Amino acid sequence: MAGLKYMSGFGNEFASEDPRCPGSLPEGQNNPQVCPYGLYAEQLSGSAFTCPRSTNKRSWLYRILPSVRHKPFTPMSCGDLTENWNDVEPDPNQLRWKPFNIPKSSEIKVDFISGLHTVCGAGDSKSRNGITIHMYTCNTSMTDKCFQNADGDFLIVPQQGEILITTEFGKMMVEPNEICVIQQGMRFSVDVFGETRGYILEVFGAHFELPDLGPIGANGLANPRDFQTPVAWYEDRTVATGYTVVNKYQGKLFSCQQDFSPFNVVAWHGNYTPYKYNLENFMVINCVAFDHADPSIFTVLTAKSTRPGRSALTFLKP
Amino acid sequence: MAGLKYMSGFGNEFASEDPRCPGSLPEGQNNPQVCPYGLYAEQLSGSAFTCPRSTNKRSWLYRILPSVRHKPFTPMSCGDLTENWNDVEPDPNQLRWKPFNIPKSSEIKVDFISGLHTVCGAGDSKSRNGITIHMYTCNTSMTDKCFQNADGDFLIVPQQGEILITTEFGKMMVEPNEICVIQQGMRFSVDVFGETRGYILEVFGAHFELPDLGPIGANGLANPRDFQTPVAWYEDRTVATGYTVVNKYQGKLFSCQQDFSPFNVVAWHGNYTPYKYNLENFMVINCVAFDHADPSIFTVLTAKSTRPGRSALTFLKP
Amino acid sequence: MAGLKYMSGFGNEFASEDPRCPGSLPEGQNNPQVCPYGLYAEQLSGSAFTCPRSTNKRSWLYRILPSVRHKPFTPMSCGDLTENWNDVEPDPNQLRWKPFNIPKSSEIKVDFISGLHTVCGAGDSKSRNGITIHMYTCNTSMTDKCFQNADGDFLIVPQQGEILITTEFGKMMVEPNEICVIQQGMRFSVDVFGETRGYILEVFGAHFELPDLGPIGANGLANPRDFQTPVAWYEDRTVATGYTVVNKYQGKLFSCQQDFSPFNVVAWHGNYTPYKYNLENFMVINCVAFDHADPSIFTVLTAKSTRPGRSALTFLKP
Amino acid sequence: MAGLKYMSGFGNEFASEDPRCPGSLPEGQNNPQVCPYGLYAEQLSGSAFTCPRSTNKRSWLYRILPSVRHKPFTPMSCGDLTENWNDVEPDPNQLRWKPFNIPKSSEIKVDFISGLHTVCGAGDSKSRNGITIHMYTCNTSMTDKCFQNADGDFLIVPQQGEILITTEFGKMMVEPNEICVIQQGMRFSVDVFGETRGYILEVFGAHFELPDLGPIGANGLANPRDFQTPVAWYEDRTVATGYTVVNKYQGKLFSCQQDFSPFNVVAWHGNYTPYKYNLENFMVINCVAFDHADPSIFTVLTAKSTRPGRSALTFLKP
Amino acid sequence: MAGLKYMSGFGNEFASEDPRCPGSLPEGQNNPQVCPYGLYAEQLSGSAFTCPRSTNKRSWLYRILPSVRHKPFTPMSCGDLTENWNDVEPDPNQLRWKPFNIPKSSEIKVDFISGLHTVCGAGDSKSRNGITIHMYTCNTSMTDKCFQNADGDFLIVPQQGEILITTEFGKMMVEPNEICVIQQGMRFSVDVFGETRGYILEVFGAHFELPDLGPIGANGLANPRDFQTPVAWYEDRTVATGYTVVNKYQGKLFSCQQDFSPFNVVAWHGNYTPYKYNLENFMVINCVAFDHADPSIFTVLTAKSTRPGRSALTFLKP
Amino acid sequence: MAGLKYMSGFGNEFASEDPRCPGSLPEGQNNPQVCPYGLYAEQLSGSAFTCPRSTNKRSWLYRILPSVRHKPFTPMSCGDLTENWNDVEPDPNQLRWKPFNIPKSSEIKVDFISGLHTVCGAGDSKSRNGITIHMYTCNTSMTDKCFQNADGDFLIVPQQGEILITTEFGKMMVEPNEICVIQQGMRFSVDVFGETRGYILEVFGAHFELPDLGPIGANGLANPRDFQTPVAWYEDRTVATGYTVVNKYQGKLFSCQQDFSPFNVVAWHGNYTPYKYNLENFMVINCVAFDHADPSIFTVLTAKSTRPGRSALTFLKP
Repeated sequence: MAGLKYMSGFGNEFASEDPRCPGSLPEGQNNPQVCPYGLYAEQLSGSAFTCPRSTNKRSWLYRILPSVRHKPFTPMSCGDLTENWNDVEPDPNQLRWKPFNIPKSSEIKVDFISGLHTVCGAGDSKSRNGITIHMYTCNTSMTDKCFQNADGDFLIVPQQGEILITTEFGKMMVEPNEICVIQQGMRFSVDVFGETRGYILEVFGAHFELPDLGPIGANGLANPRDFQTPVAWYEDRTVATGYTVVNKYQGKLFSCQQDFSPFNVVAWHGNYTPYKYNLENFMVINCVAFDHADPSIFTVLTAKSTRPGRSALTFLKP
Repeated sequence: MAGLKYMSGFGNEFASEDPRCPGSLPEGQNNPQVCPYGLYAEQLSGSAFTCPRSTNKRSWLYRILPSVRHKPFTPMSCGDLTENWNDVEPDPNQLRWKPFNIPKSSEIKVDFISGLHTVCGAGDSKSRNGITIHMYTCNTSMTDKCFQNADGDFLIVPQQGEILITTEFGKMMVEPNEICVIQQGMRFSVDVFGETRGYILEVFGAHFELPDLGPIGANGLANPRDFQTPVAWYEDRTVATGYTVVNKYQGKLFSCQQDFSPFNVVAWHGNYTPYKYNLENFMVINCVAFDHADPSIFTVLTAKSTRPGRSALTFLKP
Repeated sequence: MAGLKYMSGFGNEFASEDPRCPGSLPEGQNNPQVCPYGLYAEQLSGSAFTCPRSTNKRSWLYRILPSVRHKPFTPMSCGDLTENWNDVEPDPNQLRWKPFNIPKSSEIKVDFISGLHTVCGAGDSKSRNGITIHMYTCNTSMTDKCFQNADGDFLIVPQQGEILITTEFGKMMVEPNEICVIQQGMRFSVDVFGETRGYILEVFGAHFELPDLGPIGANGLANPRDFQTPVAWYEDRTVATGYTVVNKYQGKLFSCQQDFSPFNVVAWHGNYTPYKYNLENFMVINCVAFDHADPSIFTVLTAKSTRPGRSALTFLKP
Repeated sequence: MAGLKYMSGFGNEFASEDPRCPGSLPEGQNNPQVCPYGLYAEQLSGSAFTCPRSTNKRSWLYRILPSVRHKPFTPMSCGDLTENWNDVEPDPNQLRWKPFNIPKSSEIKVDFISGLHTVCGAGDSKSRNGITIHMYTCNTSMTDKCFQNADGDFLIVPQQGEILITTEFGKMMVEPNEICVIQQGMRFSVDVFGETRGYILEVFGAHFELPDLGPIGANGLANPRDFQTPVAWYEDRTVATGYTVVNKYQGKLFSCQQDFSPFNVVAWHGNYTPYKYNLENFMVINCVAFDHADPSIFTVLTAKSTRPGRSALTFLKP
Repeated sequence: MAGLKYMSGFGNEFASEDPRCPGSLPEGQNNPQVCPYGLYAEQLSGSAFTCPRSTNKRSWLYRILPSVRHKPFTPMSCGDLTENWNDVEPDPNQLRWKPFNIPKSSEIKVDFISGLHTVCGAGDSKSRNGITIHMYTCNTSMTDKCFQNADGDFLIVPQQGEILITTEFGKMMVEPNEICVIQQGMRFSVDVFGETRGYILEVFGAHFELPDLGPIGANGLANPRDFQTPVAWYEDRTVATGYTVVNKYQGKLFSCQQDFSPFNVVAWHGNYTPYKYNLENFMVINCVAFDHADPSIFTVLTAKSTRPGRSALTFLKP
Repeated sequence: MAGLKYMSGFGNEFASEDPRCPGSLPEGQNNPQVCPYGLYAEQLSGSAFTCPRSTNKRSWLYRILPSVRHKPFTPMSCGDLTENWNDVEPDPNQLRWKPFNIPKSSEIKVDFISGLHTVCGAGDSKSRNGITIHMYTCNTSMTDKCFQNADGDFLIVPQQGEILITTEFGKMMVEPNEICVIQQGMRFSVDVFGETRGYILEVFGAHFELPDLGPIGANGLANPRDFQTPVAWYEDRTVATGYTVVNKYQGKLFSCQQDFSPFNVVAWHGNYTPYKYNLENFMVINCVAFDHADPSIFTVLTAKSTRPGRSALTFLKP
């Protein structure tokens, strides 16, 4: 997949159409009565409609079939996923996890979804306040199956093995020392190329942002230009045997069936997208004479709480 | 009740006295050592004392007997009311309720309180954060009984049958296509005139407000002039058989007895009152050339969360 | 004029119609194609259209003839009015003015306008930032003449002699130990009843507000209920000899002629109005054990600067 | 110039390089010790370094010769440009300008700079607070000459004749019913194709922004996708006879000479750029049942004052 | 302990060193590679690193042995401490506690920790939102034992018996009519001198602050000068039998052992410290003419919620 | 003057008394009817009374004679001081000043006041908005003379020669590579020890603050601990020949006579004080891998404008 293309910038108002369908992106309006190629226009909201510009997030997707054309969701096993912190006794000792073992594909086939393990968390998705940390270990690509997190955003940190993520917005290849963010409600499917492991930071009720830099100035830490968003890519594929959509909703898993691939978005525009970032581009700043700065100086992305200066979740450059 | 009078304006600093007791409203101070007619002065707070002007809410009530002159509260059955969301499994499918059946008064007498059913919700009243949606179905007026919600505000939306609401501030007749708001701590009694149904939006920890209009300008959507607040009305009535006050507190019901009607407020002033609104007065705004605006353009009232632009609960014009 | 009526409340959304024309206030909308009695609807804006609710000010006036029906403005003598501070050398010594002499009506007729003297100021009206302090001394009522300040708000403090102020919103009688505020753009005429003197605080670019009270709580200092706004009053009067409108614009005076009284507003509604306040109602608060509080504890009204906690102009109870 | 390309989005973090120099944009850092092609890296700041993300503006330009390589500035005639409002008496009458006459090129050659006339204004550039409105009338393209406004931003509204604007960021063709914005410090040259006229809104100390939409929601008025920013274009051109840079600084004009074209930026990235907008894309919103909204509903771009909801300057769709 | 010294001021950037070790506080930097006297430098954070100045709290402690040199924590009995409010039924009646009985030391030895009883609360420490009210009753000093609250801040109000509190920052003697605050993460030990009782306000996720005074001005209520912070004091004491550190974490108690006293901080500096206040210094303010102010006028300290003007917890002068 | 003592901390609530008068600082209140030693209590305000805690500045001074006991101010020559920027033509070229020559004391005696030269500025003191930059060159100490700036704060940067500054709060010795700040309204006298030169940054309407550090965290740049405030020092000295107070007011100089030294403050407390800082303590932070940060990374002190992130004046470490 060396040929994957990306658009640069953080939080840009992007626009992209698959080159196989020139003119598929409507011009001058969002929701024409008849879209080019007979596509269906859908708005995917990433914020309350009434948020101010700086936090107002939405994208318009133009797709071959509407996303609601699926059978009802039914509960499925949550495996090692949980959001119920009361089941665990608190422990004030400093903890460190040794790397989770990755199952051998010769023994058992595990894909990204079945390989999710919740490590810890606080708060809950229902109250739109809190975070969760998961690990993923897998050895098999997801086949005719996608995942959608209705609870919050996933910041994915591969530790071993690159992952190819197909989303409604296009494809991203993410390798160790890169991170990617799949925001709430975006459907995606993960292909792997061997034994694969990483961790996931999930945040409810707030999106990841670049920190304000204060006296550091207009450049520094993770620069917005170095974030990469995929370009539109679609498949017009019928899946007679059924395509499975797995939905995490209020901390639990549900699945439904449909008879076509959800990655049928021919064109899209908007500022609510998945994106990735290479940690090598981080512009490191620190004390140059004596002492050293607090670890916040390594902030890559942060999700704000409602107290000024206090984050709900911050990802630091390792 | 065609003769009911109202004062116009949203969030005004109102003043009203029952015309049967001229001069009952003290002038120039709130809490004289001896009030006119020997009334008792009580402040009903709708906010922290220290809130800034724009959110500071309180009214002064001048009443025949103090509101605390009642026997202790004891728990009572909560019927179909609940605030315990963990008892219900989440369901990611889109849901729609068919209209609740209204019991026939020939079969069973049901008043506004016993006819309350909780439909859904999130958060809880204890943490002062969250919402609940209830239905009410009833066929009988409340007799020698009033309700008081210690948990939050009720926005009541009649669907079938008008309701006559007697409050400590006066009387309101509310018909379908009208809404009314009874704020936290205000006692009220509901009279009905047949089979009656509606729904109730309850919000904890925030009051309903008119939305800021941004570029829409100084007029539009629900205009403040069209909100109506009752005028003072009292009854000086002893209830030998006992008057029942039902209190919803932390999601549960309690009742106590007293030997007089609580609607004994002869005069009052303040900016914390019940009010009603006729949805026909809504000044509809939308796109006039192409596309259409997001549903927030139909916002009648909204209760703010602590994230800018994100509401805890918004009532849209149906 | 003992019979003058007022509506109580500060910043309320008021509505009023002259009882001689019942139904003159349009219901349910602001700007009907045909108003009752053939009146003209005009919006008087007291803020940018896009201000948030708490600072958004406007009123709708329904009048017999449109306010623009006048001849062009021409410059007139400014007398002792000025906004040019560079003409005066600064003086760091503490200053106190002895009372200005009031001219005898037997010697010279002076009305409110010709009796204006600027005492001091800072900033200017053009930049919408600054204040001015004027004195007025007069002995004669304004006849077929009104004043309109396009630059800012007048807070008028009578020292000697009551003044009867006729405005587009109705009439107010203001006596010593009372104050009144005529906001930007409101036309008014002043009648006096002998030798009359007072001072005027003028502020540009901000309106007077009640201060937030902080720990003082929900009541105290000037209570909103004690502010009084006039009720609608109109005259349908032709002035063949010409009615003069004097306009202060960018610190200078201009006048124009029209052939009818501008006080022809039959009904109005809105939250942008003139108002008055009796200083006896001020709820004085201070230290009760030792020391004494700073003078800000006597704040009646304040006009905010854009620095938190710093006012552009504050009027303290004398 | 039909072939001009633009990038879409408002306030995006853009990146562009002239296709004649592939790889000219440095990757992964802004200021390498040796830039590709031996280019000079320069940061153009559009805000204080310490502004928060939402108002922090800067671009990095990679150019053939440094922009400071010019001779000193010397004063030149300001023609009809001024910033001295005290020279004009105020006039409270409503004013309207009839269209300025455009000089015939057969009689006199007038380019964009010499054809500037100040119409009115307030505040001044020194205090970083205020606005100016200019007209331009011209019949001749600027030759070996560019303009740079050190005082504020220009929002240009062509009335007659399209204009081709060459900037350090690339080229834009702007026709009547389009607008463009050239921000503070950006050098540009204007080519015309006949008798040409338009007006210019200039604002000091604030940039133009899209308004927050409030209840209108995530789409409406001027949509961010419809703003267009030029792509990188350069010329490596020596001008033996001297290239003139005209600088407006504190309301006055200065010029200096250099021996090369300033449009030598081979690649650039950043969020501080010129842009244009076609007013046909404006998504008109208004009342659909009765009354009409305030004119703010036609806001295309607005420059904020420091009072919430009050703009320094707003451009409304005509 | 009459000789105990304190530093005055609220929230000051303090610096203190035990006079037995002159020069123990490093100058000009916080974290030298070798500290004076071979001390260990530790930063104790009282806020997120990224909080703005007004809420950024941290201190640097220079100690003989690192604080992490202890054995692992193990759970211990929580006695009457709890944070589980769901176990108690709500009760809307007004409640008042009669004084808790203090056990006789002749019958049972009870120290500060074992004498803690939770009275009521709301929210929880995990979500960093909520409060708890505890009582303490004890008759015996803590021996070779200290307490550390990882959940929030303790505001301690002695009712009977003075308490001598040894902290990592020094010693404080607190008597009835005084209060003290021990903030999150600060280890302390309590000595008593007889039968001792008091109550404790605990707040999660916010620190106590002095209220903004609004119109009261620059002086009044609890003045910052009257708050007292201890001076550095250390003991270099080995405890062969084991020193016990008790940790409250997520509402439960844990203990660990170490072989030295934790009060080994020779010098420290910073703005995150314990402090005490004598309620006699409270500058009482109230109405002096009529009515009386709301109880907020007696605010000593308040912990803010995220709603303007609404506190999470306020301590009023009794 | 090696023995000068200072208190450490920025913006602390300090308290100090001259050791020659133990107990001179009143305890438990600010304004006793009779102060210790018969001193006069005076409050020196550094902000509006109503500013929130974080910007509320004032000190209480206890002095031998009241500060108002002086004869009236009269204008004096302003020398090279000015605030009139319109007298100078703007110049867009980059400017650099060569060092001002210091007059020889053998030729002419010049003290700090007579050696002041204004270099440039913007805004003005009357509107409380703007800055000025002055140089000082002098060779003689001020004798029986002090200076008081009623317009704004002085940040003094010695370039050659240390200066001994006597203030109402005590004495400070400031050497090259140190800076000091004398805030608005504080009287001071300057002693020099040879040919002396430096520059002065003056800001109107805002005080200098430490910048918020954002991701830099809780430590870095100028640390608050390294700022030094003088300790109380007084002289009880009659000056029969007259002591001169020079006052800069609205950009002009005035002087008055009194018959005693103004440095008669025996004790004081408060958070509004002069202070100094040694630039060697600046904790330098910058990029450590590639590129370099914007100059704001060297911010020592900044005075905020009313636009977020934009300063009125920033002093960078040279």
